[in-house]
Amino acid sequence: MAKKVAFIGLGNMGGGMAANLVKAGFEVHAFDLSPAAQAHAKEEGCGIAETAAAAVEGVDFVVSMLPNGTIVESVYIDNDALLDVIPNTALVLDCSTVAPANSQRVGKEAAARGIRFVDAPVSGGVAAAAAGTLAFMVGGEEANFEAAREVLQPMGANIFRAGDVGAGQVAKICNNMLLAIHMAGTAEALQLGIDNGLDPKVLSDIMLKSSGCNWSLEKYNPVPGVMEGVPASNNYQGGFMVDLMLKDLGLAMEASLHSKSSIPMGSAARNLFSLHKNAEGEDKGAKDFSSIQQLYAKPQA
Amino acid sequence: MAKKVAFIGLGNMGGGMAANLVKAGFEVHAFDLSPAAQAHAKEEGCGIAETAAAAVEGVDFVVSMLPNGTIVESVYIDNDALLDVIPNTALVLDCSTVAPANSQRVGKEAAARGIRFVDAPVSGGVAAAAAGTLAFMVGGEEANFEAAREVLQPMGANIFRAGDVGAGQVAKICNNMLLAIHMAGTAEALQLGIDNGLDPKVLSDIMLKSSGCNWSLEKYNPVPGVMEGVPASNNYQGGFMVDLMLKDLGLAMEASLHSKSSIPMGSAARNLFSLHKNAEGEDKGAKDFSSIQQLYAKPQA
Amino acid sequence: MAKKVAFIGLGNMGGGMAANLVKAGFEVHAFDLSPAAQAHAKEEGCGIAETAAAAVEGVDFVVSMLPNGTIVESVYIDNDALLDVIPNTALVLDCSTVAPANSQRVGKEAAARGIRFVDAPVSGGVAAAAAGTLAFMVGGEEANFEAAREVLQPMGANIFRAGDVGAGQVAKICNNMLLAIHMAGTAEALQLGIDNGLDPKVLSDIMLKSSGCNWSLEKYNPVPGVMEGVPASNNYQGGFMVDLMLKDLGLAMEASLHSKSSIPMGSAARNLFSLHKNAEGEDKGAKDFSSIQQLYAKPQA
Amino acid sequence: MAKKVAFIGLGNMGGGMAANLVKAGFEVHAFDLSPAAQAHAKEEGCGIAETAAAAVEGVDFVVSMLPNGTIVESVYIDNDALLDVIPNTALVLDCSTVAPANSQRVGKEAAARGIRFVDAPVSGGVAAAAAGTLAFMVGGEEANFEAAREVLQPMGANIFRAGDVGAGQVAKICNNMLLAIHMAGTAEALQLGIDNGLDPKVLSDIMLKSSGCNWSLEKYNPVPGVMEGVPASNNYQGGFMVDLMLKDLGLAMEASLHSKSSIPMGSAARNLFSLHKNAEGEDKGAKDFSSIQQLYAKPQA
Repeated sequence: MAKKVAFIGLGNMGGGMAANLVKAGFEVHAFDLSPAAQAHAKEEGCGIAETAAAAVEGVDFVVSMLPNGTIVESVYIDNDALLDVIPNTALVLDCSTVAPANSQRVGKEAAARGIRFVDAPVSGGVAAAAAGTLAFMVGGEEANFEAAREVLQPMGANIFRAGDVGAGQVAKICNNMLLAIHMAGTAEALQLGIDNGLDPKVLSDIMLKSSGCNWSLEKYNPVPGVMEGVPASNNYQGGFMVDLMLKDLGLAMEASLHSKSSIPMGSAARNLFSLHKNAEGEDKGAKDFSSIQQLYAKPQA
Repeated sequence: MAKKVAFIGLGNMGGGMAANLVKAGFEVHAFDLSPAAQAHAKEEGCGIAETAAAAVEGVDFVVSMLPNGTIVESVYIDNDALLDVIPNTALVLDCSTVAPANSQRVGKEAAARGIRFVDAPVSGGVAAAAAGTLAFMVGGEEANFEAAREVLQPMGANIFRAGDVGAGQVAKICNNMLLAIHMAGTAEALQLGIDNGLDPKVLSDIMLKSSGCNWSLEKYNPVPGVMEGVPASNNYQGGFMVDLMLKDLGLAMEASLHSKSSIPMGSAARNLFSLHKNAEGEDKGAKDFSSIQQLYAKPQA
Repeated sequence: MAKKVAFIGLGNMGGGMAANLVKAGFEVHAFDLSPAAQAHAKEEGCGIAETAAAAVEGVDFVVSMLPNGTIVESVYIDNDALLDVIPNTALVLDCSTVAPANSQRVGKEAAARGIRFVDAPVSGGVAAAAAGTLAFMVGGEEANFEAAREVLQPMGANIFRAGDVGAGQVAKICNNMLLAIHMAGTAEALQLGIDNGLDPKVLSDIMLKSSGCNWSLEKYNPVPGVMEGVPASNNYQGGFMVDLMLKDLGLAMEASLHSKSSIPMGSAARNLFSLHKNAEGEDKGAKDFSSIQQLYAKPQA
Repeated sequence: MAKKVAFIGLGNMGGGMAANLVKAGFEVHAFDLSPAAQAHAKEEGCGIAETAAAAVEGVDFVVSMLPNGTIVESVYIDNDALLDVIPNTALVLDCSTVAPANSQRVGKEAAARGIRFVDAPVSGGVAAAAAGTLAFMVGGEEANFEAAREVLQPMGANIFRAGDVGAGQVAKICNNMLLAIHMAGTAEALQLGIDNGLDPKVLSDIMLKSSGCNWSLEKYNPVPGVMEGVPASNNYQGGFMVDLMLKDLGLAMEASLHSKSSIPMGSAARNLFSLHKNAEGEDKGAKDFSSIQQLYAKPQA
């Protein structure tokens, strides 16, 4: 008999993830406040629950994909109080990107009710969610991590255990801060080359085989026309929004305040993305984050 | 009959490069002011010239590897005035890392005398110089670049043409600025993870397969003990010195002033390496540049 | 008959402030968990209450001076729940430096009970607290601000209304971020001058009469020996601790995340103070914040 | 009999300065390549020389006000070679803002010919040049500084000796770097306040009397409408151009490279002014530098 999964939060990411669980043979009980999201999930083969509480009834797993930590705490503890109705045989996987402290609070409340919990934020974006090729950075006890694989594998290509509850969030925050740093750095280095007479394609090819190489340069060149099929060559549409990168960099700032760590490069990157979002009199938060290149470019004569 | 190469500047880098030219069958006429460097080059099979002018007599190629642009201009133009004695059939390759304007001045003076010139700064360090696996970033006319291959191939694994004279320097400056940015960023992200409870080895493994991946993380992890055989696991000895990275970042600052470009991330990195060099009451300029990790680490309780 | 003031929190700042209220003729009911603080307040003429709840009984004003926002919320709402026992004729003044959201939550809960509330964080340090020359940045309704003057005047030299509840905190955060920026900038400019051969006293005198002039240069020169009677000339003892500046810069980071503002200069300053705190293998958080000069200084040859 | 002054360079600044020397009773022999500048100087009572060499004939003082160090070296040494024709009884005052190394080279060549030289860069802008209220930061021997007063006093309100030749430039560079830092910081702090609900006028008034106070806030508030008669209240016209601040910050970058100093705050400021110049698809280099406020402001909804 098919195992049952409650899926809470069917946005751009969650919708694709839930669909992959259906394909893998799970009985998915989906919940979202948006009728459009419900309809889409239904088409993909999910059962639609009227309430979050109804969705979790009798399930083996609960997977959630929600916008921020306040909502995660609200759903599990403060308002919907799902932890009070989730079966204590279930394993809860929160795939939202939130502060480690949010995950730790939910994990602690879950443990108090005998419910197993892991945080499992993802990397990879909407396309990877649809394709089932996300990366999961998981925080939780070793045994819970192993148990979580059954649900994560249909949705992901890489599944890592970062440590105990909250560690998945820390790993994601560190990774995305580093991504922001080398994306801004790559845009900056390419523009410095352009401003000094180099062809960005030639410079990119050189740096790809040299010590400047990094993921942004390899998979996601920010200069229009250098690489096909990336947001830079599609007017910075699609991809990973500036606003989402700013959310993750905000979590990095908070983490650094919490641990009293110095993050000069991450802070510089955060402020560049923030200046970029607001520059030129229009909000560019919905553009792909590689559009940071535009902050560096000079006015055309 | 063997082709003749004059090699000017037999330091840690130049010594290994000249030796590889000997192995490849060139007749190498070497010059350096240091008797120790001369003796070492002699052992490697170079002929030793008493003066730079003597070294270039009748050669097919001149290769130079000198500490900075002032010395390069002095050797070729202002004092030794080698361009006045180099045969106009020779091709000159300056492998020093200097400002594009230095290369352009030498190139222009060479052209006025009918001498072909390329700038060809290297990436890869002392070990690669000895092994013949350097990367060369070459600036010069297409035909001169093709002619330069004959000499560069025995010394290098990757040979790129970046553009016209000076473009090799620009490419190297951009690459090394980006390297400094992602090295500092990698140290920072790893320390943020450590400060928030993660194992740096686990976090490194995760980021290596995620969007944070970059050359520093892959080849040169800055946290002691994470990766074998790198400077971080050898008390930051060997490798690429902080002082050399500061030299290259200084060239990046100058290039950005020249082209009126914004380089906030590169500037932040330059200042972090500079603060690191001077922190703790001792000059750390001779340590490997991955020792920037120490600037981020907290005092042990 | 003397008006009654409950004073909650008798630390280095609160102790001096309470003493000034006694001198001004108020009947002060003081509370602090520390017996030493209690004893000191008793000497100054305060009555000592056994509990916070006892302190507020029948008072006209409540003044609190507490270490952070979690404690403020705990005292007024979550644990001690003082708002449930404070007379609704009283005016509450929280002089702690906390996030605007902390003040706004307390203000809202107070209003729900018919209690008037203002946030009134201070500027000026321990000496000004003792001397009664603090600056108060007040957030609250105009009428409440006017009513608060009676209590603030004996403790302060400058009393400003910044806006509604929480605005006092915003003003303090902005002011202290700007202070951190020009202190770091002043240290940096003076060191650049020193490194280029200038006498820091001469350079300071020039900048004091020029467009570089700022409060740090005028009142608080960070280079030892330039100005008498400042922490820099007393081994950076006394004054305003690095850890307190880091607390305020942390509040600035949080405020900028909340309002989605760019704060590149404030962020750079925050990270410099954080790097300084941790550099050299010892925690320098207890030194005066002008010790940031030491981060810039070079090792002595 | 009137003492004779050669004045080289009659731009916006030099024109006003030369006029003040005429008013003070000097016989001024003026030179500039621009016919318009010549005509204006003639109206002000200057004698116009056909060449720079003619201007310096038989003079007691030479004052120059030129755009950059290359031009200064060209005029005195490399092309016009004025030092070969200036009487060796004359005192030369170069009021241009250039690198200390430029001043030192000219000073050395002057000394070799027995000519006294001081560098005397100014602070204060076009209005102060016209009013004779400039500040002069002078580098040169004590005796030469004293001799220079005779010429400087009619043009300036504050005259400082910073040290030996070149020290005037160092002082100006440090001062203007600090000015850039607190101007950017002031714009940033005010915007953070605005974004969190404060009135910038109220916040400015508070910070003026608090530890955030600085020259930018006091004389030059960057938010439109807060202060009358400043560029911010005149669409950022007039004042001190972004391009001139970028020139001075470029000199600060070069000085820091020369002395191997860390200037993280100055570098951050330089890059903010550079990003601002280029943002929004139009070159804003000709606006007053307090327009940096616009980089921080958010798009209007």
